Amino acid sequence: MPTGCAMDRPPQAASANTDIRNCSADPPYLPPTAINTTARLAALRGTMRAHSVHAYIVPSTDAHMSEYIAERDSRLGWLTGFTGSAGTVVVTWDKAALWTDSRYWIQAERQLDCNWELQRTTWIKSIGLWILEAVPVGANISLDPFLFSIDAWNSYSQALHGSGRTLLPIETNLVDQVWGDQRPPPPSSEIYSLPAAFTGSSWQEKVAGIRQQMEQHVRRPTAVLLSGLEETAWLFNLRGNDIPYNPVFYSYTLLTNTSIRWAASPCGHGAWTGLSNPPSLPGPAPVRPSPGPAAPLPRAHHILQCPEKLLEDSYSPVMLAKAVKNAKEQELLRAAHVRDAVAVIQYLLWLEKMVPQGQVDEFSGAQHIDVLRQSGNICAYAGAALSQFTSPLCRDGTTDITRTMHWGVPTPLQKESYTRVLMGNIDLSRLIFPPNTAGRGVESFARRALWNVGLNYGHGTGHGIGNFLSVHEWPVGFQSNNVPLMAGMFTSIEPGYYRDGEFGIRIEDVALVVEAQTKVPFLTFEVVSLVPYDRNLIDLSLLSPEQVRGARGRGAELGRGAGVQGERRGLREWV
Amino acid sequence: MPTGCAMDRPPQAASANTDIRNCSADPPYLPPTAINTTARLAALRGTMRAHSVHAYIVPSTDAHMSEYIAERDSRLGWLTGFTGSAGTVVVTWDKAALWTDSRYWIQAERQLDCNWELQRTTWIKSIGLWILEAVPVGANISLDPFLFSIDAWNSYSQALHGSGRTLLPIETNLVDQVWGDQRPPPPSSEIYSLPAAFTGSSWQEKVAGIRQQMEQHVRRPTAVLLSGLEETAWLFNLRGNDIPYNPVFYSYTLLTNTSIRWAASPCGHGAWTGLSNPPSLPGPAPVRPSPGPAAPLPRAHHILQCPEKLLEDSYSPVMLAKAVKNAKEQELLRAAHVRDAVAVIQYLLWLEKMVPQGQVDEFSGAQHIDVLRQSGNICAYAGAALSQFTSPLCRDGTTDITRTMHWGVPTPLQKESYTRVLMGNIDLSRLIFPPNTAGRGVESFARRALWNVGLNYGHGTGHGIGNFLSVHEWPVGFQSNNVPLMAGMFTSIEPGYYRDGEFGIRIEDVALVVEAQTKVPFLTFEVVSLVPYDRNLIDLSLLSPEQVRGARGRGAELGRGAGVQGERRGLREWV
Repeated sequence: MPTGCAMDRPPQAASANTDIRNCSADPPYLPPTAINTTARLAALRGTMRAHSVHAYIVPSTDAHMSEYIAERDSRLGWLTGFTGSAGTVVVTWDKAALWTDSRYWIQAERQLDCNWELQRTTWIKSIGLWILEAVPVGANISLDPFLFSIDAWNSYSQALHGSGRTLLPIETNLVDQVWGDQRPPPPSSEIYSLPAAFTGSSWQEKVAGIRQQMEQHVRRPTAVLLSGLEETAWLFNLRGNDIPYNPVFYSYTLLTNTSIRWAASPCGHGAWTGLSNPPSLPGPAPVRPSPGPAAPLPRAHHILQCPEKLLEDSYSPVMLAKAVKNAKEQELLRAAHVRDAVAVIQYLLWLEKMVPQGQVDEFSGAQHIDVLRQSGNICAYAGAALSQFTSPLCRDGTTDITRTMHWGVPTPLQKESYTRVLMGNIDLSRLIFPPNTAGRGVESFARRALWNVGLNYGHGTGHGIGNFLSVHEWPVGFQSNNVPLMAGMFTSIEPGYYRDGEFGIRIEDVALVVEAQTKVPFLTFEVVSLVPYDRNLIDLSLLSPEQVRGARGRGAELGRGAGVQGERRGLREWV
Repeated sequence: MPTGCAMDRPPQAASANTDIRNCSADPPYLPPTAINTTARLAALRGTMRAHSVHAYIVPSTDAHMSEYIAERDSRLGWLTGFTGSAGTVVVTWDKAALWTDSRYWIQAERQLDCNWELQRTTWIKSIGLWILEAVPVGANISLDPFLFSIDAWNSYSQALHGSGRTLLPIETNLVDQVWGDQRPPPPSSEIYSLPAAFTGSSWQEKVAGIRQQMEQHVRRPTAVLLSGLEETAWLFNLRGNDIPYNPVFYSYTLLTNTSIRWAASPCGHGAWTGLSNPPSLPGPAPVRPSPGPAAPLPRAHHILQCPEKLLEDSYSPVMLAKAVKNAKEQELLRAAHVRDAVAVIQYLLWLEKMVPQGQVDEFSGAQHIDVLRQSGNICAYAGAALSQFTSPLCRDGTTDITRTMHWGVPTPLQKESYTRVLMGNIDLSRLIFPPNTAGRGVESFARRALWNVGLNYGHGTGHGIGNFLSVHEWPVGFQSNNVPLMAGMFTSIEPGYYRDGEFGIRIEDVALVVEAQTKVPFLTFEVVSLVPYDRNLIDLSLLSPEQVRGARGRGAELGRGAGVQGERRGLREWV
């Protein structure tokens, strides 16, 4: 996986209860990729007993609820050996279990040793039920309150409610205690300003906009606390490199109607180490504030105990402002897609030549990508004959595209599956819908063509995208807790279909929400991705005339405009 | 509106801020249908002051959260003059406002006097904001805790949270105090057993099934409290007539793993008046238990204050069991639709003959319906040339169907609107979808054809249907708080389109959720409604071949089978 790229691997199909591990055999069978966690678990259990903790909950996130985290925050990964990006662990005195979603089931089976049960769900309710079976009445169930949102705390609290067990926050992280000296040091990457040419809006303008939102809010809050790393980065047009592939830096911002207090936390969570105006804004070289005297952070459970002053909104004003891209940001994102498409098409040409000759595998494919990245920007991985790749994070705008190619003769099932995934992509991206429509209410248009023949996929249909920030940017998308779609938002549209051990298909484009050509101001999508689909995998007879028109609009223009046409030689015609 | 029919009037389009009332004129203009509420409001405000209540919230429902209520429980209606079925009222010392949804905006403008603001939204959050503007810090905001669900209580609590106002439950209803002797007496309708031929399952079997669910529940509850009137009616195969057009009777049931305690409340809410085994079950003539000594009911706010023993589930086991119809119930519902369709088609023939001659209006139409109801079962209303009607509640199964007809030359807009509503009806009812799909995620298929040209409708897309119980049966449907669709559930599918003051269209069918013909067990709908659509209003050129096939399957068979074909004469051909 080349540096600098945020990968979005396709999920694997459900492997149900056929765990590759055989822990009841004598000796147990484990794949060679499994990590021996016996000593770590024993040490953690020692610490748990010392704290009278009967069950300890470890999440995969950090104190900022980041999707991608630094090695130092990978407590779950260190404890279990599981390196997937999402999961929850519970350890009791005699049991240990990992909950993760279908993307990671196969990976988890290959990385967990027999100390671990794999639970193929992610509902907090189901975690709570497991805990109730695992520990007796009177037990303490504990967690590190920094690592859980208020919602998650409430959900655990409700799941254990009335059961005679106590949910007990302990501010010292028990995994950290056991991890000790082996834990990676805090990051110290440089923080830098993003030039005005990349932002379209100064930090002063952004701060003024947020303060205006605060004034217009009916409850008139006097302060907003920003804990999401991309919130502070966006607000001050600053970037860093504290988390691999994510240009952010550890920080909290307390924005009041009269002041800005900005804190970095190089010692990890647990203390404000600086509390100052943002350094050198908008000067040329912002510096990380030096650690000051440690002062306690607001803690979710303290806030819950004393909430009179707390105003809970589902989304911070910064999140909402960030989600709607300004004209400059839209222009940059479009431009990034044009440049990226040129590189991707060059890569496709190269793959098309090399793969049939058996001269490329994932490793050499990645090497070639590194070469292409010198000139353009692309990051990808190529697998077997039916392969997928995903592309990258650039300073002017992030792209996220997935293509599935076949350089041989696809089976009828592969062809029909690919075509139905494409139909779903087209149906959703051509949809016209009223303002204030939630993504959750329309994402099934991306599934209908698959549903029609009893097929489906087990992941979400799309996510927001940041401008040189998160590839997966909250809160835009098609899930039940995403905000309604508004003009100026970017989202991926990425249906797929996966057959465990056989093949996987995903067709992912990035689309901008724009006004539709209706008399009333309805909305629709404008797809900004410009890479053609694989004609070799399309069964045209399944597509409606409207779907053919929908597919035809994409890619062709770029192909000609970028002069790739001449190079196309054997590259199959796009629709 | 003939007796015995649960009506489902189409919503009227948004009238925005053009209120028909002109309260700033001198003298104010009010339509003659407005009710003078000055004296009632003054009396209520007197009582509020006596209780130190600065704002009093009055809902439209009763203590059982019934959708349709008895006159005695119509506190909101008596206080305001507004007779719509859904709304919320807040009265302060100097203001009064009604919140209701778009179905009722025009009606509210015609019924409210100038004492009342009309608020065109129904969000509790917006009600909370209005209250915060209307009453000062330190104020008491009060309500009758019997009339609010725990969720509603929590929402009001959250809306006022941290504002310095107190949410204060008062168990004596202040409107009732003012209403006094004028309040209608408690109902005393007879309770009767439903014969086995209409239920498919004895009450003993049903009780055993619920107890099994309690045993299998991971929290092993020992008691279930049923407050929904249709829950007790369904569980014991009993019916009554306490609420017009709803065959239910006032009652609570406390079902434990060893006993059944059954209470009726003829004095209205506020006390258990009997607490006994269900009378004479399954004997021939169940009787209402005689009022016993009044004992306090569990109150939502008491439960909230002392909730260790309370298990909160979104749906009671009775609701869920009731939602999936057994084979007998399915057979009865289908049969009801056949019989109903014959009557509806006869009615259509009569209308088609009479309307162009100008010989029918809503009143004479209703009279003719009464005649038809002697032989078959139909209840309907006919309006202008473009009219709608809805049909009825029968003892074997409830039907709910809406047709829109035009007996002249429809305008192009009428024709296109009708066709697009029909396309939505067909698209949703032909959808194939995986198990565990929530209606909310697929209801936009019923809207897409309208959305495509910038049109939409402001109501839900469908609701569950009871067997000789509620026409709108919770918790099946297409809204965000409905349960996932399961085989054996019935739901209406009823897209529409409305232009205020011009015309309204709704096409409503009832559909059974069935297994699809896919290799894996996916689901789809089987439409059981058999009444043809109006060919005169369909623009065939808009329909895809698949949509034409979808429409063609319906109605035609019945037309021939029931021998109506010969009578059809001038009735326009159905698709």
